Amino acid sequence: MTTPTRGADAALAYLRDHADEHLKGLDDLLRIPSVSADPELRDECRRAARWVADELTRIGADHALLTDTSSHPIVTADWLHAGPDKPTVLIYCHYDVQPTDPLDEWVRPPFEPRYENDIVYARGSGDDKGQLFMHIKAAEAWIRGAGGSPVNLRFFFEGDEEHDSRPSEHFVANHPELLQADICLVSDSDMADDDGTPAITYGLRGIAYWDVKVSGPMQDLHSGQFGGGVDNPATVLVQMLASLVDADGRCTVPGFYDRVRDLTDADRAAYAAQPFDAEDWAQRIGVSGPKDGERGYTLLERMSGRPTFDINGLSGGYSGEGSKTIIPAWAAAKISTRLVPDQDHLEIERAMIKHLEAIAPPTVEVTVTPIQGGQPLVTPLDHPGCLLAARALEKAFGKAPLFHRSGGSIPVVAAMDTLLGLKSVMVGFASPNGNFHSPNEWMPLANYRGGMDALVHLWDELGGVTPGELRGT
Amino acid sequence: MTTPTRGADAALAYLRDHADEHLKGLDDLLRIPSVSADPELRDECRRAARWVADELTRIGADHALLTDTSSHPIVTADWLHAGPDKPTVLIYCHYDVQPTDPLDEWVRPPFEPRYENDIVYARGSGDDKGQLFMHIKAAEAWIRGAGGSPVNLRFFFEGDEEHDSRPSEHFVANHPELLQADICLVSDSDMADDDGTPAITYGLRGIAYWDVKVSGPMQDLHSGQFGGGVDNPATVLVQMLASLVDADGRCTVPGFYDRVRDLTDADRAAYAAQPFDAEDWAQRIGVSGPKDGERGYTLLERMSGRPTFDINGLSGGYSGEGSKTIIPAWAAAKISTRLVPDQDHLEIERAMIKHLEAIAPPTVEVTVTPIQGGQPLVTPLDHPGCLLAARALEKAFGKAPLFHRSGGSIPVVAAMDTLLGLKSVMVGFASPNGNFHSPNEWMPLANYRGGMDALVHLWDELGGVTPGELRGT
Repeated sequence: MTTPTRGADAALAYLRDHADEHLKGLDDLLRIPSVSADPELRDECRRAARWVADELTRIGADHALLTDTSSHPIVTADWLHAGPDKPTVLIYCHYDVQPTDPLDEWVRPPFEPRYENDIVYARGSGDDKGQLFMHIKAAEAWIRGAGGSPVNLRFFFEGDEEHDSRPSEHFVANHPELLQADICLVSDSDMADDDGTPAITYGLRGIAYWDVKVSGPMQDLHSGQFGGGVDNPATVLVQMLASLVDADGRCTVPGFYDRVRDLTDADRAAYAAQPFDAEDWAQRIGVSGPKDGERGYTLLERMSGRPTFDINGLSGGYSGEGSKTIIPAWAAAKISTRLVPDQDHLEIERAMIKHLEAIAPPTVEVTVTPIQGGQPLVTPLDHPGCLLAARALEKAFGKAPLFHRSGGSIPVVAAMDTLLGLKSVMVGFASPNGNFHSPNEWMPLANYRGGMDALVHLWDELGGVTPGELRGT
Repeated sequence: MTTPTRGADAALAYLRDHADEHLKGLDDLLRIPSVSADPELRDECRRAARWVADELTRIGADHALLTDTSSHPIVTADWLHAGPDKPTVLIYCHYDVQPTDPLDEWVRPPFEPRYENDIVYARGSGDDKGQLFMHIKAAEAWIRGAGGSPVNLRFFFEGDEEHDSRPSEHFVANHPELLQADICLVSDSDMADDDGTPAITYGLRGIAYWDVKVSGPMQDLHSGQFGGGVDNPATVLVQMLASLVDADGRCTVPGFYDRVRDLTDADRAAYAAQPFDAEDWAQRIGVSGPKDGERGYTLLERMSGRPTFDINGLSGGYSGEGSKTIIPAWAAAKISTRLVPDQDHLEIERAMIKHLEAIAPPTVEVTVTPIQGGQPLVTPLDHPGCLLAARALEKAFGKAPLFHRSGGSIPVVAAMDTLLGLKSVMVGFASPNGNFHSPNEWMPLANYRGGMDALVHLWDELGGVTPGELRGT
């Protein structure tokens, strides 16, 4: 392990000296109710964006800017004084938060932070305002405390992550000049455990999502009068959907697995290193056990390293009390697949539509409408960004991080990969049990302190390589 | 053909003279939203029952009575002044109606009757309040217009036919004294064609109907975090349901066909005599053609002479706009089978439950709840009731009726057969295309007028035979 430079020591000391003042700043930010999905809180979202931009200016960043989108503004800024021979890091976080309902389950109102046993409870404490604030403070520690950062920094903080990926994807496509960097550092995830084991997320699944509707007779028919004579759209739908998954849980759409890159030995080793108790996991979500899944893969591998097919909703016909004896005029489903490299969401989208149209009986009409799509991505485990992040995390937390892939999708991260060729390393500091998206969200202040230290170390480490080394060019 | 008696002429004249007044009465009854399946309309169902009982008293029937059940009241009354040497006819209809959704597909609100081109459009116009009202008016024509009916009459009008057969079946079992008769005349079916060809229904399919619910995790899960690891209740449901039907449309539940009595030559001849244009039929209901069905049976045979399986509704997960990336906590379906002699609905009910429980994966909970059940039945084609009804219909409509079996189910008719030994002749007057159970239900007023005439003739014909001749004893 390398030794921290004198600059890093100064930056770390700056964080110690200003700890109380920083907590006060965090508290201010957490008090802004920036719920992106709530149209009534539109002004609060803008206030949060403004607050973040002002703070960036205050710590010495340049060009702090609010760019309007179809929804909430995106905040960008930069500090590019490390020199052209130093890497440029793009920092991505989001200042918006999830809705707060059910409100009556919160011990304290979600936007009045509570501090207890070295934990802060508030909406956004972990996801993601706390982490965004850590990035501002780590940058401040270098700029103000050590006279400058060892790497060039760009900031990309959005306000729609929790409800709509389109504004940020659109921004990525239209403002590459504000995002030019050698690597992106995303902090919107969690640690491996509450015992202080850090984590690096090096992959995300992609997604393709459709509405499927099977239409038959022009209106609901009496199932006695017509049963046996008319193709029942609900029966046709369930037969079509059932045929999309085989007995092993594999998707049967032709070509679905063609581009799936199999897990490497390194991937498998990373999965095997995860602390995971399947019984505890099952109990927490209220199932008797995991499903019978794809053979040859562990449960963790199946939940983030393999593609899946899921039905997200079913509708059609009668679903009230008692009985209604109809052949429904239509039945519909929302279905989706999670994708892994090198599947292409547009290719899968076309394959699904083609297949569903091919297996539909001629006596019904089947319409398949794409609703959402995003590419999968993996940053190679031996990417210098991953290796240096691991070192920085070990310095800060005294433990080597675990590497894992996430089963979820962050379309903007995929967009930066696809559109800008920008690889991301995802280093998050929230608690894995921190009630993201639920009442009483919380964040250990130890993770907050350790996380800022880790970022200081990470800029230090990255300052020791060239942009070319980082890009692998 | 026999000539109408002087009494019949007087009764027919009475109907002509009071036609406008009768239409007004029909309108009043159709305006009561007696949807039996809707708990919020409980009082409206009672109001309809009260309305019917008052009307029976008003026309001169005795002992008009509401008997409470576990659901809506049953209305009975009698007029037993024809004398003990005359047959007693039990008249069965129902005053409840189907639910009205989807409401936005109705041209006019379902309980605001619309009159256009000698047609009345309203929920219940054909099924079955219109037909119930015809019976009251035919009885009134004899009692008020001709000084008395040539047969003894009993009325049995229930309020749960559309959603729950148990109250009326329970009533049949517990109040045989109110139902003593030599034959039952059921009007809850339709004519052979809209060209005025009447029909006698001599068979009904039985029914068995279930709610099926598949429950998995305790709440909706993030499909990215958990997809691939957790059995998705919606996927499990569609796979279970899809497996219930084979490629020929036959139900795969073990034992399902064991007791199915095959069609006789007389049955096949009656089917072959039906005027039926499959292209016209398909166009009317808005499908490109009939489904690929059970081999060895014509389309008409499959729709009433053979058992079927149908899905009546699907629900679960997200079905709003856009996407929600969840594994739903549960998914549910309403499913039903139509049965033919000698299938037993309780036996089929048990077989379905046993089979679904057997094929459920161990990681979900499957609950199957019986919702409705009724036996299939066939009345012999040469029963005197059938023959006299045919004569009466020919007098009223100028055309001999066709004999057919219905694909629908009236469990209470099966119960009268089984429990009371009471044979039923089903003479119905609705249009075969009248949107029973669908939006914009309609009834030709010509059928309404002709139907009342036919009932006048039928009581006249039945007055010419003895109870013993009718019972075949």
